[in-house]
Amino acid sequence: MAAPRLTRRGLIAGAGAVGAGIALGGVELDRALGDSSGSGQVPFDGAHQAGIATAAQDRLHFAAFDVTADRRADLRDLLRVWTEAARRMTAGDLVGEVDALPAPPVDTGEALGLPPSRLTVTLGLGPSLFDDRFGLASRRLVALAELPPLPGDELEPNRSGGDLCVQACADDPQVVFHAVRNLARIGRGAVVMRWSQLGFGRTSTTSRSQTTPRNLMGFKDGTNNIKLEDGDALDRHVWADAPGWLRGGTYLVARRIRMLIEVWDRAALSDQEATIGRVKESGALLGEQREFDPVDLSSKRIPADAHVRLAAPSTNGGIKILRRGYSFTDGMDERLGQLDAGLFFISFQRDPAAFVELQRRLGSTDALNEYIVHTGSGLFAVPPGTTPGGYVGQTLLG
Amino acid sequence: MAAPRLTRRGLIAGAGAVGAGIALGGVELDRALGDSSGSGQVPFDGAHQAGIATAAQDRLHFAAFDVTADRRADLRDLLRVWTEAARRMTAGDLVGEVDALPAPPVDTGEALGLPPSRLTVTLGLGPSLFDDRFGLASRRLVALAELPPLPGDELEPNRSGGDLCVQACADDPQVVFHAVRNLARIGRGAVVMRWSQLGFGRTSTTSRSQTTPRNLMGFKDGTNNIKLEDGDALDRHVWADAPGWLRGGTYLVARRIRMLIEVWDRAALSDQEATIGRVKESGALLGEQREFDPVDLSSKRIPADAHVRLAAPSTNGGIKILRRGYSFTDGMDERLGQLDAGLFFISFQRDPAAFVELQRRLGSTDALNEYIVHTGSGLFAVPPGTTPGGYVGQTLLG
Repeated sequence: MAAPRLTRRGLIAGAGAVGAGIALGGVELDRALGDSSGSGQVPFDGAHQAGIATAAQDRLHFAAFDVTADRRADLRDLLRVWTEAARRMTAGDLVGEVDALPAPPVDTGEALGLPPSRLTVTLGLGPSLFDDRFGLASRRLVALAELPPLPGDELEPNRSGGDLCVQACADDPQVVFHAVRNLARIGRGAVVMRWSQLGFGRTSTTSRSQTTPRNLMGFKDGTNNIKLEDGDALDRHVWADAPGWLRGGTYLVARRIRMLIEVWDRAALSDQEATIGRVKESGALLGEQREFDPVDLSSKRIPADAHVRLAAPSTNGGIKILRRGYSFTDGMDERLGQLDAGLFFISFQRDPAAFVELQRRLGSTDALNEYIVHTGSGLFAVPPGTTPGGYVGQTLLG
Repeated sequence: MAAPRLTRRGLIAGAGAVGAGIALGGVELDRALGDSSGSGQVPFDGAHQAGIATAAQDRLHFAAFDVTADRRADLRDLLRVWTEAARRMTAGDLVGEVDALPAPPVDTGEALGLPPSRLTVTLGLGPSLFDDRFGLASRRLVALAELPPLPGDELEPNRSGGDLCVQACADDPQVVFHAVRNLARIGRGAVVMRWSQLGFGRTSTTSRSQTTPRNLMGFKDGTNNIKLEDGDALDRHVWADAPGWLRGGTYLVARRIRMLIEVWDRAALSDQEATIGRVKESGALLGEQREFDPVDLSSKRIPADAHVRLAAPSTNGGIKILRRGYSFTDGMDERLGQLDAGLFFISFQRDPAAFVELQRRLGSTDALNEYIVHTGSGLFAVPPGTTPGGYVGQTLLG
């Protein structure tokens, strides 16, 4: 082996021009919480995987993989190697240790010189992983089943499903691309990528320190989302607590929601506001003044089929989910001759039934349905977090 | 008409949490030049269109359109309306003046509350516009012809050509998406979008104040690019100066260059460096120490077919082009089962023959060809800049 040649930390430390460098200690947490673009580091290890109750970063690269290896030991090795690579990348390090000149680089290099950028890598396990291949059939949790057909579904198989998923979030798109690409690369021979989605801008807040962004309908989205400061709500609605391998984990639902923006753009402002139930500019409920004024569904200003009414926990038996979605565009849809753009919806919940119930209700009566189509879907169990040296999935495979 | 409801400036001025607000006066120029993410404003009017000799912003949304209107007056109206909308958006204003409640909003709203983010909107005219439809056949410049077939071409018709193009660049992806979407929206009835491309990260520097970013091959790209501080080089290589409607304008070449990254990732570091002719980590020429050490092509360390050697002006009769490319990924290529990712190459030059000659040379002997395929292509004449109240294309249609 040759001496180390490529380093990422070294470049960062030496490059004052690049940014603020690596945050340490208490500063890290401040950055993980902060709203503005961050260069800092989100700790990888912890009771829960990072990237869930982490202040939503600005950019996303999400990918689903199918496992082609057929031995349980290979799956375990893959998750070990992926975990270690993710741990290193989130710290701003290269994926691997050293480069030996005659071999391909251990890291593809496009993130050289970039700070950690609050990268988180969150790994999930799909229902299809729990078939006979790896002896996991008996470990499958009842809730870990493919989502049932839902109203609004026009799902494309090549945007749906997968044995494994990777959610990479950071404040720099090059950093999230680098993470997914390198996991795909080092997984070669054990996995093939099934689909992937770039999200260019966050549409959710998951911390009280963040301002509410707008989705591509132009409305503020996620005003009443669960915030990471609400430990009680996280425990009640997000973290699984039944004994077993998922304890401390959660379920991830991904939905590629195509917005029919050309139709939406022709709707009157008053119709748009009635559809959502909020004022477009301020984000306040119809009839209210400010974005965070409490939801009073007795108000006659909010139509019966307004999205905000149907999605409110008080009309859904208290159901709450943690949303962490991103806007996307994938160029033109040749079939329709329109921009293929919308919301890549991600939610975390302790039981996928929460999402299913909500979507059944929204999908059948929500005024928004006229303007959206669900074109992709995935459900994944997200194992709990790791201790240093451990790997994601160890509670299942260890 | 109802009173104004939605405003963008108002929200910005009132929202201290959002960012630094709008830069004014001399600060604007500093920001246009600056390297880091900027919230400021790049002036729209000027001798040349903005977005060319402007410090390359971080994000791109590029779109090509075909004109469906068939009268010259309609084309002129479109360019007038687009120019005014672009002028407003680059200033951080809404696309239109006021919202009347019963009508669709004049602005789609997703950039409400966002600062100008150094948005530039650059408009170009394709060769196909100069047919018989608008009486422009006699005004077509000889150089404004579709690019000839070039080595490495695997062009897809639905990613190539177009009567008009829009290059939107800014430091915020939501701002560039908003710009293209709103131009498409207000052009409805006169144009249809032909193709579009999101670029998630810049791969070029166009100012000495910027650090050199890395492309998806992991190499620093554009070290020897023309910089906006080099007025002489711009005059010699970029701005058209023959009398006529293009004087002060330029030609834009767009090429969607797919990188075969899974093949590249299997190449040894030494092979990668020999292919490019530079050291991956430092960006220095092989055998040199620092990125900006001068190009000495007599060095035997640089292979005969290295990209840097073949692309150097000294081996090309002094040809220089201003590059302004962006990395992209569009998810999985189902056909190949690989990430569809690469470089959306944009260059500006006073004569497209400069690009053609360079690409002929590179395409036939460049070691890089093993790893790239050109999947999309466009050529557009970029008219000169505007004075306040004027419109892009006025020198042709006015």
